Amino acid sequence: MASIDANPPSGTRDFLPEEVARREHAFATIRASFAAHGFAPLDTPAFERLEVLTGKYGEEGDQLIFKILRRGDHEASGDADLALRYDLTVPLARVAARYGSQLPTPFKRYQIAPVWRADRPGKGRYREFFQCDVDTIGSDSLVADASTLAAVTDTLRALGLDGFRVQLNSRKALRGLVEAYGVDVAQESEALTALDKLDKIGLDGVAAELTERELPAAAIAALTADLSGDDPAGAIRERLAGSQTGTAGLAEVDRVLELVGDDQPVAYAPVLARGLSYYTGPVFEVVHDGLDATIAAGGRYDGLIGMFQSQDVPATGGSLGMERILLLLEQAAAAADERRAGPQVLVTIMDDETAADAVTVAARLRASGLTTELYTGGGRLKLAKQLKYADRRGVRVAVIRGADERDAATVTLKELASGEQRTVALDDLEREAAALLDR
Amino acid sequence: MASIDANPPSGTRDFLPEEVARREHAFATIRASFAAHGFAPLDTPAFERLEVLTGKYGEEGDQLIFKILRRGDHEASGDADLALRYDLTVPLARVAARYGSQLPTPFKRYQIAPVWRADRPGKGRYREFFQCDVDTIGSDSLVADASTLAAVTDTLRALGLDGFRVQLNSRKALRGLVEAYGVDVAQESEALTALDKLDKIGLDGVAAELTERELPAAAIAALTADLSGDDPAGAIRERLAGSQTGTAGLAEVDRVLELVGDDQPVAYAPVLARGLSYYTGPVFEVVHDGLDATIAAGGRYDGLIGMFQSQDVPATGGSLGMERILLLLEQAAAAADERRAGPQVLVTIMDDETAADAVTVAARLRASGLTTELYTGGGRLKLAKQLKYADRRGVRVAVIRGADERDAATVTLKELASGEQRTVALDDLEREAAALLDR
Repeated sequence: MASIDANPPSGTRDFLPEEVARREHAFATIRASFAAHGFAPLDTPAFERLEVLTGKYGEEGDQLIFKILRRGDHEASGDADLALRYDLTVPLARVAARYGSQLPTPFKRYQIAPVWRADRPGKGRYREFFQCDVDTIGSDSLVADASTLAAVTDTLRALGLDGFRVQLNSRKALRGLVEAYGVDVAQESEALTALDKLDKIGLDGVAAELTERELPAAAIAALTADLSGDDPAGAIRERLAGSQTGTAGLAEVDRVLELVGDDQPVAYAPVLARGLSYYTGPVFEVVHDGLDATIAAGGRYDGLIGMFQSQDVPATGGSLGMERILLLLEQAAAAADERRAGPQVLVTIMDDETAADAVTVAARLRASGLTTELYTGGGRLKLAKQLKYADRRGVRVAVIRGADERDAATVTLKELASGEQRTVALDDLEREAAALLDR
Repeated sequence: MASIDANPPSGTRDFLPEEVARREHAFATIRASFAAHGFAPLDTPAFERLEVLTGKYGEEGDQLIFKILRRGDHEASGDADLALRYDLTVPLARVAARYGSQLPTPFKRYQIAPVWRADRPGKGRYREFFQCDVDTIGSDSLVADASTLAAVTDTLRALGLDGFRVQLNSRKALRGLVEAYGVDVAQESEALTALDKLDKIGLDGVAAELTERELPAAAIAALTADLSGDDPAGAIRERLAGSQTGTAGLAEVDRVLELVGDDQPVAYAPVLARGLSYYTGPVFEVVHDGLDATIAAGGRYDGLIGMFQSQDVPATGGSLGMERILLLLEQAAAAADERRAGPQVLVTIMDDETAADAVTVAARLRASGLTTELYTGGGRLKLAKQLKYADRRGVRVAVIRGADERDAATVTLKELASGEQRTVALDDLEREAAALLDR
């Protein structure tokens, strides 16, 4: 029998024990932080009936839904009636509709669970990945939106992350903007899809795409002028002041900014749209400067639950991009490990006479970028004792310079693992030490 | 727009916060117990390539695999190339083949995760359910099999379960048995499938199914005679002594029994087969007497990893049936809650003179099955104070019997919630109290 390919499916991963431990640790931190903000855990099935998912994510999202073959008589037909969940928000909306009266109002829940998207796998892009969502159902107050931002940013900090900023906008403000530029409401969705790519393709790219999508040339020119000025946000604010929807949207943004307070790194982002089609109010993205990528995002979606029942229920929330966050944490941990690691080089001291020389040698090595310790033990200066100490500290190269080496303007380098040693010109100290460490 | 059905898909469940908390608590207990036995966590994708899963679970199992529609150009064809995992063992075998050299030998792992089966949903039978698996890869020693049993039973106890027993057999012994009854090796699998149903359909049912499957009448008669005697295990042991495979299988069983020791509730179960086709050595089932159902099971599967690579790797493990275990825990918690709950009735004491009467009244109520407390506070016997105490204790009915009631052979019952009270004949005490509590 031919053996079967033992790799996990394309775009998915196996997690061996150490990695599971690291991921679980992060998940536990998130659970504790969300719970501290008053959110309670919810679990939903991995798959949903197909009709629950379709039509919620916009055209591109719908195409990425993994469909499950209908069982029984229909299997041969290739029909699907179930599908793997694409996010945690639509299942939550279904739960809110199904159990509404059993749930407290507002219902504040978190969920940490995998989702599946039939995306083309790539660096940091998987077909199975975890989302960590936090949502508030049943409140139309902007306090709920501001609380989502606080929960998300506090959780990121609890994970040990910093160096992020929050970009905030409102779908209402965007609608007002489209109006203010004189774009027909029928083209709104096309305009926003292009605008949302500003970070990726730049202003020229957006302008080109808007032209391609046949938006009015005057609107494109006005937009380009506004965004290429000194104060794009100010320019857009002025535009919005001329539209009723724009004014309302801007008020929404300003109220959330006021509620989150000055301590949070939140700023108005006038063309942020967020891809998903179900957003209706404030939307936000948390961008990490180190990764130059979105690590969390969310917004208000007052119309989604109404798709499952006759009555609309206001809702707002956010989602952490776990895979990117775990990558950042890994990078931070690696950097910390490096800082915590012992010295690469120990400079020994042969006698009191050459001690000052040793200080100079250590300083030269340190200046060249090598972590270098000078032996500082007391008692008799036995070399064997110093080498033993070096070994215990995890040092890889010991530098020895007694009176002989000093007189000859040389230095002896000893690789501890192999015991090999060589005497080189003092001038070549840094180069030779680095070469030994590079082996 | 017509609203969408908000129920979870058939055979799946939503877990609201309290239920998530209860499940997570059990999972945490299991993780800690498995870790204490030296097992490390592993995570694998929810879906696998279809070829990884098919042909591993026997005919019936294969039919229950949920297949995922192939994406892209092939979507319209109705082809499937992925499938949701059916258990955690086959993905582990794939991982063992893929990462073999990176893993310690033996590799001891646990995994707590959902699996999916397209079974007909029923009471306690779901299409999405959690399994908790513990396995040892790379050891052919029966110490590994005995250790699995110890880890499984210790974990069940850590969860607070008792009243279970372990049934142990060996696939080798079963093969020997089929041989000893003179059944052709070609019919072995059919014979075992029927035998495995003994618990469910009884001996007559098994005999009928064996006849239907056209096994030799002499073999069926011999089996029936062996199993309907006073000591079926003894009779089967005698049969096995006549076959080389049987003797080897029996030695395997006896060695595991010896290794687990006398403290564990493990016994030889001569016709236990376990449905899954991949087992090769010892197999076991943990049966709970209260539920009359299997709550854990497992066995040795030395051939499975060899399906993913050129070389066989011995492996053995077990799986907890989480849904049934959670049900048992829930029942136990409910029973404990009832015991912990406060009394239903408080018998008050009006004065020292009638105190002895009150003792008698309380005893009568208690004898009738009502949880009844007699007021035992000191100080002055004010009724108001006693009623306040009753209310704080969660009591629903107070019984009042002073000198007036005593002289009239009556008793007064007061419903605390409504404040209503009625004086009834002492003879009707129990009936009237029960009627008030039943309201």
